[in-house]
Amino acid sequence: MSEISLSGAKVLISGGLGLIGSALARRLLDFDCDVLLIDSLNENFGGNLFNIEGIRDRVRVNISDIRDLHGLRDLLRDCELLFNLAGQTSHMDSMSAPFEDLEINCVAQLSLLEACRQINPRVRIVFAQVYGRPQYLPVDEKHPVQPVDVNGINKIAGESYHILYHDKHRIHSTVLRLTNTYGPHMRIKDARQIFMGIWVRNLLEGRPIEVWGGQQRRDFLYVDDAAEAFIAAATTPATVGKTFNIGGADVISLADLAALMATPSNGAIERKEFPFERKLIDIGDYFTDDSAFRTATGWRPRVGIKEGVDRTLAFYRANARHYV
Amino acid sequence: MSEISLSGAKVLISGGLGLIGSALARRLLDFDCDVLLIDSLNENFGGNLFNIEGIRDRVRVNISDIRDLHGLRDLLRDCELLFNLAGQTSHMDSMSAPFEDLEINCVAQLSLLEACRQINPRVRIVFAQVYGRPQYLPVDEKHPVQPVDVNGINKIAGESYHILYHDKHRIHSTVLRLTNTYGPHMRIKDARQIFMGIWVRNLLEGRPIEVWGGQQRRDFLYVDDAAEAFIAAATTPATVGKTFNIGGADVISLADLAALMATPSNGAIERKEFPFERKLIDIGDYFTDDSAFRTATGWRPRVGIKEGVDRTLAFYRANARHYV
Repeated sequence: MSEISLSGAKVLISGGLGLIGSALARRLLDFDCDVLLIDSLNENFGGNLFNIEGIRDRVRVNISDIRDLHGLRDLLRDCELLFNLAGQTSHMDSMSAPFEDLEINCVAQLSLLEACRQINPRVRIVFAQVYGRPQYLPVDEKHPVQPVDVNGINKIAGESYHILYHDKHRIHSTVLRLTNTYGPHMRIKDARQIFMGIWVRNLLEGRPIEVWGGQQRRDFLYVDDAAEAFIAAATTPATVGKTFNIGGADVISLADLAALMATPSNGAIERKEFPFERKLIDIGDYFTDDSAFRTATGWRPRVGIKEGVDRTLAFYRANARHYV
Repeated sequence: MSEISLSGAKVLISGGLGLIGSALARRLLDFDCDVLLIDSLNENFGGNLFNIEGIRDRVRVNISDIRDLHGLRDLLRDCELLFNLAGQTSHMDSMSAPFEDLEINCVAQLSLLEACRQINPRVRIVFAQVYGRPQYLPVDEKHPVQPVDVNGINKIAGESYHILYHDKHRIHSTVLRLTNTYGPHMRIKDARQIFMGIWVRNLLEGRPIEVWGGQQRRDFLYVDDAAEAFIAAATTPATVGKTFNIGGADVISLADLAALMATPSNGAIERKEFPFERKLIDIGDYFTDDSAFRTATGWRPRVGIKEGVDRTLAFYRANARHYV
């Protein structure tokens, strides 16, 4: 494929009003991109119109569900670059409402790829993916993907379609498997997007942070680093047809993370044992080997966990009312 | 779980009019099972009413599609044992009609498991699965499942749901990953079920067998051995929640298999190079390590390729008119 130039590119972001989508939109404006955001604003997902406060008059927004193929086809027709970030992210919801997860994370992904194949086969696609429970650490790309919930199974199918449509239909797709991504504009109403969201809310509202377990070590990817990873993937032809892991700057235990977040404001922390049904789908330790992506693109995460958490808490101290 | 006794058991077989389903039905009658066969008789799949010729008055048949959840729920309600064999099997069709494959091999499987969870959580399930392109040989259960087509992706999701519903919802499911299964009652109209089908048809109709490539080595599972494997799985509690490979008695190259089939009747063989779009989804060599299943159940394949091919050709010499 030819080199993608971001400058002035027509870009579509599905899930564009979410945590990563809105950060990406903001960054793409630096390259004078023509940015179209699609988002369902499904109340259980990560989309929030306040996430584009300040850039709202510089992007186009189309509120629709990626399950609506008819509308999507028209929006896809002349886009050059598709950041495909829409998804149902809640592991718990995927177990209680498995068909909604299936429709969004699996069926709609196949619909979208079929639409691209039929009407816009030259579009460049970067797809966001997640992992299940790791068998060894750090998790590299050879690690078998072991789903521990319906969400995991459907996300694997969605990822596989993207790679298959490259291999068989020459669609220029790249899959990025992200570790826990956090930052300003994440969902804090509950833990549906990331557990750190509900921690932030509890801290701000004077309730203790509930730490389930606490020994689990994880890496955390600051949202601006995630956005840069998507841009690096889209503009590096060598990433086409491949799957890469994207990790965070630091690995930290959940207990230490809770202390980092609560201590500055004298917030309380409550350590808890997992109840049975949550333990079944907890993934335990998780951290990433993203050396393949660093080598391919030169990208690396730049925002450490301390700085990222400080920026995040500062954002929600000013703006929490738009998120709860 | 408690030991399953086959004697008099209420058994449902989805895809019950197909190659394996009908052989299994016949065998289950030896145990006085109450056998209900569900089959869509979709003209592109393997179902054929002639497959139950001779036992038709001893089984119940319900012509319906497993995508029809309402009908399925009622049929599932009091079954003790479910052999879940219904599926879209054509790799080529899965690429040209990806949504039908998705609905049957993925969506309907989740529907069926949800129905079991809700109305019959004690049912014992054995699910049939297939593999993609192998990375090493023989293929054991640790082998990563690498889909090479839409069918492969959806079958993996279907398999994963079965294991997940065991792990999380205590549904008693076992997954059997079958190698190429053949024998009397297979589809011979075309290569949609197995390429050996069209070879049989061409031989009988005086046309040459077309061998694409020919060096590929495969193992072949005779249908009665496959049926015994399903019965062994269902009656061995230690197989619950697990995935097993099921191989055939012999490994043979496609060129040698063609000779084995054509020589007795002086049939012609035509060696051909793969056209581009077929090579993309051919899986090359494939043979199985099924030692885990042999150890767990005592099962082993008993019908060698020579005997199996002879029986198969004899069956179609007498009955081809019901299959073309």
